[in-house]
Amino acid sequence: MDKRKTKTCMVHFQPSGVKVEVPEGTVLLEAARNVGVYLSSICGGDGYCGKCKVTVNDGDFKCKPTTLLTGEEVRQNIVLACQTKILSDMILTIGKSHTLETDQILMGIDTSRIGLVSGKVPEKAFAFEPLVKKIYLEMTPPTVEDHTADHERLNTAIRHRMNIDSPALQMGFRVLQELPVLLKKADYKVTATIGHRGGAMEIVQVEAGNCSQTNYAIAVDLGTTTVVAHLIDLISGKTVDTEAAYNSQINFGEDYIRRIIYAEQNDAFEKMQTCMVDDINSLIVTLAERNKTSLQDITAVIGAGNTAMTHFLLNLDSTRIRREPYVASASFIPPIRAAEVGIQINKRGLLYCLPSVAAYVGGDVVSGVLATGMNRRQELALFVDIGTNGEVVLGNKDWMMCASSSAGPAFEGSGVKHGMRAASGAIEKLRIKEDGTIDYETVGDAKPIGVCGSGLLDTLAELFTAGVIDRAGKFQLKDDPRLNEGEDGLEYTLVEAYDDHHAIVITQADINNLIRSKAGVFACIKSLLDSADKKIEDLDAVYLAGGFGNYLNVERAVTIGLLPGVDIEKIHFVGNTSIAGAKMTLFSRQAQIEVEKIATSMTYLDLMSHPDYMNEFIRSNFLPHTDLTLFPSGKVPAQRN
Amino acid sequence: MDKRKTKTCMVHFQPSGVKVEVPEGTVLLEAARNVGVYLSSICGGDGYCGKCKVTVNDGDFKCKPTTLLTGEEVRQNIVLACQTKILSDMILTIGKSHTLETDQILMGIDTSRIGLVSGKVPEKAFAFEPLVKKIYLEMTPPTVEDHTADHERLNTAIRHRMNIDSPALQMGFRVLQELPVLLKKADYKVTATIGHRGGAMEIVQVEAGNCSQTNYAIAVDLGTTTVVAHLIDLISGKTVDTEAAYNSQINFGEDYIRRIIYAEQNDAFEKMQTCMVDDINSLIVTLAERNKTSLQDITAVIGAGNTAMTHFLLNLDSTRIRREPYVASASFIPPIRAAEVGIQINKRGLLYCLPSVAAYVGGDVVSGVLATGMNRRQELALFVDIGTNGEVVLGNKDWMMCASSSAGPAFEGSGVKHGMRAASGAIEKLRIKEDGTIDYETVGDAKPIGVCGSGLLDTLAELFTAGVIDRAGKFQLKDDPRLNEGEDGLEYTLVEAYDDHHAIVITQADINNLIRSKAGVFACIKSLLDSADKKIEDLDAVYLAGGFGNYLNVERAVTIGLLPGVDIEKIHFVGNTSIAGAKMTLFSRQAQIEVEKIATSMTYLDLMSHPDYMNEFIRSNFLPHTDLTLFPSGKVPAQRN
Repeated sequence: MDKRKTKTCMVHFQPSGVKVEVPEGTVLLEAARNVGVYLSSICGGDGYCGKCKVTVNDGDFKCKPTTLLTGEEVRQNIVLACQTKILSDMILTIGKSHTLETDQILMGIDTSRIGLVSGKVPEKAFAFEPLVKKIYLEMTPPTVEDHTADHERLNTAIRHRMNIDSPALQMGFRVLQELPVLLKKADYKVTATIGHRGGAMEIVQVEAGNCSQTNYAIAVDLGTTTVVAHLIDLISGKTVDTEAAYNSQINFGEDYIRRIIYAEQNDAFEKMQTCMVDDINSLIVTLAERNKTSLQDITAVIGAGNTAMTHFLLNLDSTRIRREPYVASASFIPPIRAAEVGIQINKRGLLYCLPSVAAYVGGDVVSGVLATGMNRRQELALFVDIGTNGEVVLGNKDWMMCASSSAGPAFEGSGVKHGMRAASGAIEKLRIKEDGTIDYETVGDAKPIGVCGSGLLDTLAELFTAGVIDRAGKFQLKDDPRLNEGEDGLEYTLVEAYDDHHAIVITQADINNLIRSKAGVFACIKSLLDSADKKIEDLDAVYLAGGFGNYLNVERAVTIGLLPGVDIEKIHFVGNTSIAGAKMTLFSRQAQIEVEKIATSMTYLDLMSHPDYMNEFIRSNFLPHTDLTLFPSGKVPAQRN
Repeated sequence: MDKRKTKTCMVHFQPSGVKVEVPEGTVLLEAARNVGVYLSSICGGDGYCGKCKVTVNDGDFKCKPTTLLTGEEVRQNIVLACQTKILSDMILTIGKSHTLETDQILMGIDTSRIGLVSGKVPEKAFAFEPLVKKIYLEMTPPTVEDHTADHERLNTAIRHRMNIDSPALQMGFRVLQELPVLLKKADYKVTATIGHRGGAMEIVQVEAGNCSQTNYAIAVDLGTTTVVAHLIDLISGKTVDTEAAYNSQINFGEDYIRRIIYAEQNDAFEKMQTCMVDDINSLIVTLAERNKTSLQDITAVIGAGNTAMTHFLLNLDSTRIRREPYVASASFIPPIRAAEVGIQINKRGLLYCLPSVAAYVGGDVVSGVLATGMNRRQELALFVDIGTNGEVVLGNKDWMMCASSSAGPAFEGSGVKHGMRAASGAIEKLRIKEDGTIDYETVGDAKPIGVCGSGLLDTLAELFTAGVIDRAGKFQLKDDPRLNEGEDGLEYTLVEAYDDHHAIVITQADINNLIRSKAGVFACIKSLLDSADKKIEDLDAVYLAGGFGNYLNVERAVTIGLLPGVDIEKIHFVGNTSIAGAKMTLFSRQAQIEVEKIATSMTYLDLMSHPDYMNEFIRSNFLPHTDLTLFPSGKVPAQRN
């Protein structure tokens, strides 16, 4: 008799105290994912990003050899979770760099005044006619003289009230079955919830009595890194409250291509959907509890995300997003029932995801265009949305082109040695003074533990203007006391080591990463301009959006050549336009029609097959650019050597 | 400890051999219903129709006293099943009068030439565009230059093929989710099934490869007594096969008002639905097996029934159909998924029930109007559909009025002493010769065991023209040897007793019932004519429809005053127009639009609140009528005394 049995090991994560029992030989990163313990991982578990470091306090394990750990780290029992197999019960410590904090997630601008996003569009752009609306109806009960059937009586009342002469509104069969009893019980005084579904109108639900004054919706920005939710009062049109959380898919890769690969290799598309749905449900429950709102009174969710996030949420096949010819499963998805994907609002409530343009230009960008209003104006505008990817739209009311660059997560703090998210202790502003000392501000005024995106942008610009790096990003001042030879080559000390904390540095590799990121975005901008036969000076407006946007110093963005050298006053912060446009779409059927028009009419430029993109990218790998005439407004310091 | 336990009894039904175990004290009719053993019952179990007689061969029982059994019957251990409680194991014999046979159910006319129902409308009235259609599409797979998403690629291909410029067609979320994988697997060569749903078009399903040449539907006449189903080839438009069965709801009452009462008192609306769905499923399976058709290839069911039957099928609240102000739950029900009510065709196939006008004028009548085409012609036509109820429509292309009379089931063989359905052995034709002898024909040329509707009509007309009864229906020739005093008063012998079979008679009560039935229908016709300020001679056409219709001698229908006295050549048999119109609606979107227009535009006349109806009814309680000028074409015999 074979009595061999796989041994199980208890893994204990500190400081959270979370425990999980796994079979011997399980990879540590997998064990952490199983119980939802977050570990940074950019490469998705392939062992080359070196982000998933944890300290083993106790227990046996087996590691693959790696060059990503220093000798000192190995001595301290620090391992890469993705390269470590569990051989016994273990106790581990997860370091602060893995901690998720949501304080600093950009919540989006106030769009209580619909259509207003940049301060430049004061008028109310669209009529208020929300995706889902409730109307109270007092009908005359049937008599012998008026024996109209219940279903037709209700339809007639609704059409009369809404002043429409369409044929019968759609109605779910179960709602129809329950209607007669309800109408009788309520003495024909009911509240009908009417929703727009794919061009047709639907009677979503019918309730007894007057509950037309209680109707809520949720607008969600389905970000690759962050999920932001707003609770909206559909009667007043006001944003009641906002909440944000990290996208828990991060456990499976920090960019969506990694996540698609992970899901393909592990048959985990449902898991991807569950992650996102759980994140959304958590946000909804938090918002509902905090504001004493019943989930039953939330009748719609509107979501704006890139094409991959939308596909993950709906569990549509996303495998071809990463393969030539880069095809989405669906660009336009009419509103479905939110319950169909597991979102827990009113069981008949709707979920509408903003339409996308192509595999790499999603509903978040379409939403952004709607929010800026650039599609309704004559002026030539450039819209730049910087997140894990950088998406760019160029055009005006007559035409629009768009493209996407894989900017990489450098400006989100990933792929940079001491990069981090905008959590407590992250350096968010930085200035090198004339005397060489460094001033900085951290998130929450906490002790500095790393640098977030806006701090990295400042750092790059300051190193450049102070002459520490040259136009190619190379360190020049070999005698600068802050410049030392580190493990990864030359590194510049931003903050000296203190107490038990190591020094915070920026390495040559970090700088190269950041320059590559900004070069990707700028080459994308330049390729679009060239394709449209436009010049930088033709631009009337530049809209800068994204979670990154709020912390961005516009002038320094031009300094390093992330944004083109237009007059600073032409550049407008527009914040989280993904959620801003989603809310407009939620509020106005007209806006929904417009959003679909935007998605249909935008021309997508595939940079990979664009002949000049690679040349543009190479030319952009300088600060601010090889061609200084493109940056008349930028300050280009004299080169010191 | 209470050890008392209800005793169970085994009830054994002969000749079927069906057994059922029930608690002691169960009512026999209930026990029969539990195992689907059919027992005639008009009153639905209230103990006053006397139809549910069975013979107890063995076992103990307890009966309520009844006047509906003769002394002889009591001695033979004959009981009323609804009035008998089971006290022990029992063996019972169910008599022939309860036997269901479907041979004689009217299958409906051939409508392979759409629009042709009476031989008078030879042209093809509507364009062939079926409710559900399949189209084969060969799409170009995506390329880098053409990266349109799958969902939009399919939509574009469909819209191009169908030459429509509507926005995206509706599509179930699950179909959308499966689409990308399917398209890729099928190399973008697929068959899309397109359905019309409530004004909008839907992509019902998508299949790999070309299966556009296999598409079937079922048309159903949802009769109170009989359910008739036709298997239709949606490619050729031909009727492949037909099948019929008795509506197994008969167990709960022979007319729908009784069934509603039964369902209300026994919380049995779901049971009513199950009965009807099971009947339809049985017919579908029979048709599919006999014709080697896969249920998956049946993509639609179209049903025409009266308002109550439609409500039963959909399990819509029908309780107010029988109560003032007589309101239906829904008149117009857009196509739903057949699976939603349990009909087993393609899991995404559609079910469309023809719209009704009012609680007592249903989709079967609307279907009939469409089939006759009277709504498209200038001539003034009368449409009479005789079943358990008699429904009448009067009008032309400019206006239409309708009404319903509770004709009662006399002409269906119920409520008449030796009445029976048109099953084997039923007298279907009868003539009293000059010498006083009687010629008759029976269904299947079997020995006579009773009289079905057409036989009853003949009998009434013959008794009248032979002078056996007077214009009031009273027996006159007291010395006629065929006239005897029976248990229920005077009765006329149609067939002498033979072998072990009793004589077949018609009683004074039977005659009174039949006259009341015809009077109800005629008063309904007359009230409509009066309301429209029209006279009988204004009528250009009379269409006679219903399961009754095929066996009806038109001339004798005029003789007794069931139909008005117009020239015989103006009267047209149109057979089962319920299913004929349903098939037209199935075949043509245009016909579906027309059917809905008919239902909307028809004015319903409530006879109960019509001041002259009762007077008309009383005046019609004569043969053929008190006012002979209404029957210029009818033969009115000289009164013999």
